[in-house]
Amino acid sequence: MKSYRKELWFNIPKRRAFINITSQVETCLKESGIQEGLLLVNAMHITASVFINDNESGLHQDYEEWLEGLAPHEPVSRYRHNRTGEDNGDAQLKRQIMGREVVAAVTRGAMDFGPWEQIFYGEFDGLRRKRVLVKIIGD
Amino acid sequence: MKSYRKELWFNIPKRRAFINITSQVETCLKESGIQEGLLLVNAMHITASVFINDNESGLHQDYEEWLEGLAPHEPVSRYRHNRTGEDNGDAQLKRQIMGREVVAAVTRGAMDFGPWEQIFYGEFDGLRRKRVLVKIIGD
Amino acid sequence: MKSYRKELWFNIPKRRAFINITSQVETCLKESGIQEGLLLVNAMHITASVFINDNESGLHQDYEEWLEGLAPHEPVSRYRHNRTGEDNGDAQLKRQIMGREVVAAVTRGAMDFGPWEQIFYGEFDGLRRKRVLVKIIGD
Repeated sequence: MKSYRKELWFNIPKRRAFINITSQVETCLKESGIQEGLLLVNAMHITASVFINDNESGLHQDYEEWLEGLAPHEPVSRYRHNRTGEDNGDAQLKRQIMGREVVAAVTRGAMDFGPWEQIFYGEFDGLRRKRVLVKIIGD
Repeated sequence: MKSYRKELWFNIPKRRAFINITSQVETCLKESGIQEGLLLVNAMHITASVFINDNESGLHQDYEEWLEGLAPHEPVSRYRHNRTGEDNGDAQLKRQIMGREVVAAVTRGAMDFGPWEQIFYGEFDGLRRKRVLVKIIGD
Repeated sequence: MKSYRKELWFNIPKRRAFINITSQVETCLKESGIQEGLLLVNAMHITASVFINDNESGLHQDYEEWLEGLAPHEPVSRYRHNRTGEDNGDAQLKRQIMGREVVAAVTRGAMDFGPWEQIFYGEFDGLRRKRVLVKIIGD
């Protein structure tokens, strides 16, 4: 069994954003040389997500508004977590809806995706360096 | 390490439904011959889910109503995604709550489940052919 | 390829709680002897979650209140599932938000986590014995 590991780093210049990381993950898979196996991509931070969906900007605005409705950023005093001095109490909740990780199948050296599946990094507390882990196992 | 791959196809005759696919996935596992490993089941479409829960019709109605409250189908104009000409903006949000994929343990040739765990396909934008990927790796 | 399996049992003395199980999972990983691979931790019950987040009590109170707002326990009559005689209709919905499982990378014999990542058992229908599965595969 082969294994491969890489960290992808991001420094998003605003609080929230969705970034398409599909081609970066494809590069990792190519580097790994793995033909058949499973690929894990996870946020290493608790205020960020990795998820799979469509690369469509209207949809991303829908997600942004929907998540803001479900877990508003303000007033920051509504979250007990923010009594620690943070202002990211909403980010942990938003990330729970969008998920920490995706697991994808690797088949014949490629990610085994449907036609619209793309991998996104979801940032909910940006303005600093954060990272995503790519781990691949297989043969 | 062995690997196995199969697509399961569905054509749900209405917009939304939950379909128990446990026995179809068990058949895949038997075909694979894998005794110890991990099994991934994921929707290959961004408007559908694969999730694990109880095979209880009242619960499924609860899910249906709850998801419709969190991300209503109508008015379709509430979603920017629908400006592309689609009417499935709600489906991408519902699928995010219910999840894209499940990963299950394979132990002694069977899915290693608790007593009530069953695998479901959640359709949120049906009336067309769509598919689920089953990928199993192990020995 | 090696594989390892263990059940962790819990008997939470109230309906809902979040329990940090990171050190128990680390003990499993050490017992497995696996250096490189993937680690799955999943609730074996449909009214409980396994998720990764921060070990911060204010955040856990935020989760508790937020989930109670999204899927209130009472009135129990609001859930069709409870017509079966259960009173845990809310628990299946809460668990869907928090997730059934986590998949973590194993690198050099340790869980490959960011600085704040900890694994939690989320109980939404306690007062009885329930369990979590740990399955690890790799070399």
